[in-house]
Amino acid sequence: MNRPWIIGIMGGGDAAAEALDNAYRLGCLVAQHKWCLLNGGRDAGVMAASARGAFENGGLTVGILPGTTLHTASPHITIPIRTGMGMARNCINVLSSDVVVACPGGPGTLSEIALALKSDRPVITMGFSLPALPGLSIGTGRLLSADTPEAVVGLIEKLLQ
Amino acid sequence: MNRPWIIGIMGGGDAAAEALDNAYRLGCLVAQHKWCLLNGGRDAGVMAASARGAFENGGLTVGILPGTTLHTASPHITIPIRTGMGMARNCINVLSSDVVVACPGGPGTLSEIALALKSDRPVITMGFSLPALPGLSIGTGRLLSADTPEAVVGLIEKLLQ
Amino acid sequence: MNRPWIIGIMGGGDAAAEALDNAYRLGCLVAQHKWCLLNGGRDAGVMAASARGAFENGGLTVGILPGTTLHTASPHITIPIRTGMGMARNCINVLSSDVVVACPGGPGTLSEIALALKSDRPVITMGFSLPALPGLSIGTGRLLSADTPEAVVGLIEKLLQ
Amino acid sequence: MNRPWIIGIMGGGDAAAEALDNAYRLGCLVAQHKWCLLNGGRDAGVMAASARGAFENGGLTVGILPGTTLHTASPHITIPIRTGMGMARNCINVLSSDVVVACPGGPGTLSEIALALKSDRPVITMGFSLPALPGLSIGTGRLLSADTPEAVVGLIEKLLQ
Repeated sequence: MNRPWIIGIMGGGDAAAEALDNAYRLGCLVAQHKWCLLNGGRDAGVMAASARGAFENGGLTVGILPGTTLHTASPHITIPIRTGMGMARNCINVLSSDVVVACPGGPGTLSEIALALKSDRPVITMGFSLPALPGLSIGTGRLLSADTPEAVVGLIEKLLQ
Repeated sequence: MNRPWIIGIMGGGDAAAEALDNAYRLGCLVAQHKWCLLNGGRDAGVMAASARGAFENGGLTVGILPGTTLHTASPHITIPIRTGMGMARNCINVLSSDVVVACPGGPGTLSEIALALKSDRPVITMGFSLPALPGLSIGTGRLLSADTPEAVVGLIEKLLQ
Repeated sequence: MNRPWIIGIMGGGDAAAEALDNAYRLGCLVAQHKWCLLNGGRDAGVMAASARGAFENGGLTVGILPGTTLHTASPHITIPIRTGMGMARNCINVLSSDVVVACPGGPGTLSEIALALKSDRPVITMGFSLPALPGLSIGTGRLLSADTPEAVVGLIEKLLQ
Repeated sequence: MNRPWIIGIMGGGDAAAEALDNAYRLGCLVAQHKWCLLNGGRDAGVMAASARGAFENGGLTVGILPGTTLHTASPHITIPIRTGMGMARNCINVLSSDVVVACPGGPGTLSEIALALKSDRPVITMGFSLPALPGLSIGTGRLLSADTPEAVVGLIEKLLQ
């Protein structure tokens, strides 16, 4: 295949130190595996941390931006995609990913988990698990969980086989 | 104001009898209150049931369709909006609603709850409650719950005041 | 059929007096024919004029807004659809219209003519004609032209038969 | 700057031999200049030819796909972005490009010229010129023209200074 696998890393624009550290380390590992990192592109929280980790390790980083300009982009995004579509870009985030990793976050991250499951992209939550939701089914989607970046990478490797 | 309030009713394209009955009855009540009903427009599940309830009571029904044609539209949708954007239309569903009601459903419905909370639209879950989600915050969004269509309407009336 | 035909009226947010007068008169006629008027929803130019014409004649007016709020909406829009998708809403404008009428405008209006032709929606230019474009084909699209609102309505009636 | 300039190459999915040859040669030149090539990603016409030219010269190629899968993607696209948004992806094509080059094409290409002018992205038509359009203004957009891939690159270099 001519293309690298694309690993989407989702998570809060405002996140706690541990989540940021995990996102950074996962970004490093994604680049070391020669995968392409894709995220929401902004210079904040999990997006900034994961992009920096991949970038510092020579990885390719794609950021799907909500706006029409580069003003909010992380400096560690190599390929900024300017959608101008606001939160509708969350759909593109997950559709364009071969595997979606969800870090702690807010309702935007929850939407990405749900949209990924709806579109049959495998989802790995890192550092937390989604409980059973009364009244809401996750359909046929694959939903996994791991505690560390290394364990996430182990799951990704199995999913990509 | 020249405009009716717009009440979005989300829920599964494949749903149990009780959820369909509640969606139908809520559609009836929305029309009787002279509100506009908005949903995902397809002729399936909660979409079809809620549109039928409103339509049979003389209500205006707007359907935000994922496709480019009317082939999948419910016959009880008065104004079909053909987006051609697939599940990105879920964003339009919630942004265009003054209040979002979530009936039981799958990952698409979960995405709409999350997108509504992200965009500060009040959300009422009907017939179930969203539990606390470890690792995921719902931010500043308003999330309410009620068991019956009548109780949902009571909450809508308070929210619209 | 339970649904009114949807007539999309596109044109500049900044337009000359004659174009605005034609758009207003076309809006009046659309409402008198019990068709639904759809446009870009903003309180400016051709959008504001055509919505006012339809609204004053008891017509249903749908506005597909680029933003997430009602701040920019014309007061003569009955059903504002908040897309939050910027100019990507131009695609929804034309896909949701059974016939597209293009009034004079800028590049946004030109994009809507092109997107309508691409998606096989018939287009009527009012008050001007699109010349042949070297290097660019309009494909299989139907492109008509008329000088007055009355003549446009005559063409719409033929197209809807 | 950490990022390569992004050159968008638009044009017909069905195109004449000369247009395809020019698109291929422009793709080669874009890669040789270390720019990133962006197009609509499909394995057809100008998209396939320009991607192949860049790919064979070691360039990075980004394809903004209309669908949700890779089935229609050119094998010479390194980074496929799956939007699932149909022709609304045309907006992303031009917003994400620092300079847009339009090859001969159909109404989709015309829409991209118009959307680029609307969003203030410079546009270079290759092998044809857009005539003055009565009733339609191109606003403040920059619209240039050149006959050969080499001349297009000369214009791009001036625009990027």
